[in-house]
Amino acid sequence: MRFANARLADGRRHDIEVAGGRIAALLPASNEGDLDLDGALVLPPLVDGHIHLDKTLLGLPWLPNQATGGRVADRIEAERRVRAARTVPESETGANLVRQVMASGTLHMRSHVDIDDQLGLRNLHEILKVRQLFQDLVTIQIVAFPQSGVLRSPGTAALLDAAIAEGADLLGGLDPIGIDGDLDGHLDAIFAIAERRGVGVDIHLHDLGEAGIAQINAIAGRTEAAGLQDKVAISHAFALGSVPTGVAARTADRLAEAGVAIMSHGPGGAPLPPLKLLREHGVRLFGGSDNVRDAWSPFGNGDMLERAMTIAYRANFRHDQELAFTFDMATRAAADVLGITDYGIAVGGPADFVVVEAETLAEAVAARPRRKLVVKAGRLLARDGVVVA
Amino acid sequence: MRFANARLADGRRHDIEVAGGRIAALLPASNEGDLDLDGALVLPPLVDGHIHLDKTLLGLPWLPNQATGGRVADRIEAERRVRAARTVPESETGANLVRQVMASGTLHMRSHVDIDDQLGLRNLHEILKVRQLFQDLVTIQIVAFPQSGVLRSPGTAALLDAAIAEGADLLGGLDPIGIDGDLDGHLDAIFAIAERRGVGVDIHLHDLGEAGIAQINAIAGRTEAAGLQDKVAISHAFALGSVPTGVAARTADRLAEAGVAIMSHGPGGAPLPPLKLLREHGVRLFGGSDNVRDAWSPFGNGDMLERAMTIAYRANFRHDQELAFTFDMATRAAADVLGITDYGIAVGGPADFVVVEAETLAEAVAARPRRKLVVKAGRLLARDGVVVA
Repeated sequence: MRFANARLADGRRHDIEVAGGRIAALLPASNEGDLDLDGALVLPPLVDGHIHLDKTLLGLPWLPNQATGGRVADRIEAERRVRAARTVPESETGANLVRQVMASGTLHMRSHVDIDDQLGLRNLHEILKVRQLFQDLVTIQIVAFPQSGVLRSPGTAALLDAAIAEGADLLGGLDPIGIDGDLDGHLDAIFAIAERRGVGVDIHLHDLGEAGIAQINAIAGRTEAAGLQDKVAISHAFALGSVPTGVAARTADRLAEAGVAIMSHGPGGAPLPPLKLLREHGVRLFGGSDNVRDAWSPFGNGDMLERAMTIAYRANFRHDQELAFTFDMATRAAADVLGITDYGIAVGGPADFVVVEAETLAEAVAARPRRKLVVKAGRLLARDGVVVA
Repeated sequence: MRFANARLADGRRHDIEVAGGRIAALLPASNEGDLDLDGALVLPPLVDGHIHLDKTLLGLPWLPNQATGGRVADRIEAERRVRAARTVPESETGANLVRQVMASGTLHMRSHVDIDDQLGLRNLHEILKVRQLFQDLVTIQIVAFPQSGVLRSPGTAALLDAAIAEGADLLGGLDPIGIDGDLDGHLDAIFAIAERRGVGVDIHLHDLGEAGIAQINAIAGRTEAAGLQDKVAISHAFALGSVPTGVAARTADRLAEAGVAIMSHGPGGAPLPPLKLLREHGVRLFGGSDNVRDAWSPFGNGDMLERAMTIAYRANFRHDQELAFTFDMATRAAADVLGITDYGIAVGGPADFVVVEAETLAEAVAARPRRKLVVKAGRLLARDGVVVA
């Protein structure tokens, strides 16, 4: 199978020869392909570093946001009510979202899955079904996420441990100070399980200011103590965008030393971490969708090319190399953090790619054109935004 | 002509009977229409309160952003270089943008048009051609915009006056302190022309902090002195989002008293004015696209439904009534500021509307679905995002 006249990121046209689901050769452009891409841009698959497959209400009737206040705690309570009233299983809505993100070109994702005293492992079981269903098409990494806290939601630590035993890949966490009011207690519980099970950690951190920074530094310390360097991430880390540059720079050095990555979705109402400063200090950065039409947010569609645009827009990035930076957060850099090593458009690599009408990566990010084709292992997975496989 | 099974904003289904380009009746839903909308949501036309038809590079090869720094002044200089190198007239790219925004459902817009010592009235003449070309389809209001300043760009005041004589509708302005370094001098020049010509004013204001607030208060004072209440707007007004709430509240009272409206595009990197506070204090708010793929910004597509989403996202709005508020900024409220009185879906009103797959206004804002139909004076103008007229 030969995809002719593909424009690669370097701007040149090549034919992509595919055999056995892999890229067998990158040849000079010709008119002899099985499918002529006519100079359309070929991108590596999009990677979503932070999604909530179990939360989405995609495919259900519109549900107005129910939160009675603007705090994280208010939204947790609102979601508990929405969950209790649900009649459609999370496996169904989660599958709706997976189909939608596949159609937009995402082939690898990290999904947090709620675990608390109300749910037990129900959502995990539902999302494990989704993972099973799509196992040949997309990578779904699962974080056991204590959405209601660890200490204030009785029995959650034991549930998190059980979740790893049943197939979750990483331990999650949530604002140790802001939600549990006990930094050491929260981190003790999470890192003990992570260390014993030998898995990574990805902690939601919304807390701002010095309290947020203290938690970031504590997570860096725990990461080193547990020998989990390069296996830990902090999602959101709004605090980094809420403190003076000097404080952010010192914290960045700690993150880089400890091998702790930072995930941003380009928040609308919260401070954006200083992405350039973090990168200059050697911190690994990756992107994610976060909420997609759920009890937390009416927004989101799971399109990681649009997410790269949103992150760039919030960062006031305008130059091509800046747009390439957020594109990297939604592709290669996220793949690295997720440990997806079989990745990228190269001879010998997987024949996984996304085709768009754009001249350059920067244009693809800015314009977020419709995905003409999504190809997985050399086979057509989606065309013009619709799954065909 | 009868459009059957239209869902209106109140959630109910109606048939829309059209005659002579106007809505002759709203009837009970039936199966007897000429076109069955099958319960799709019918929205009033989108209104863009701030676009730059002459700046866009839409339809040209991708041009990386050229600005060498992040200040407004750096971007002005970069644009002067891009302009000087252009070979395609602004009327062509401007028409590309008008077609694109029509396809997304915008039927009324206010375009700023650059006027300075380099350009003279060239861009005005080009955009007057665009207005002529689309005169039966869309309203294009033109602001004579001194993009390089008034005092620091020799001869600009006389050019602005000539622009009004040749068909521009309003006087523009730009950071009287930040760009011209002379608050009174800048406002003297603009308001003298506005008063003499009897036209409104719409001033770009990026300056932050107390300097920005001083300029807002000065504009409010000038508005009253010139008797231009309800004919003046300030675009961006980032300063309102950069000062303590008490200062913003006092400034809001001045704006409301003087009848000065505020335009926001939901900036990515600059502070968002406190929209709820402004509304509570009686300030008229409206939305606009601002830059669309031009020398200032690689982003933007002119879709005002997406813009309503962007404003809501930046404001951290999540509830349905909040999304309806930003929808209003992109429709009715913007029409009011632009003085478009023949507007809205009602018996006797113009048969202008936009059809989308959504259950509610809030869903339309959050999901920004493709425009199934755009109807102008009862005739199909665009279908599925493509102009057909």
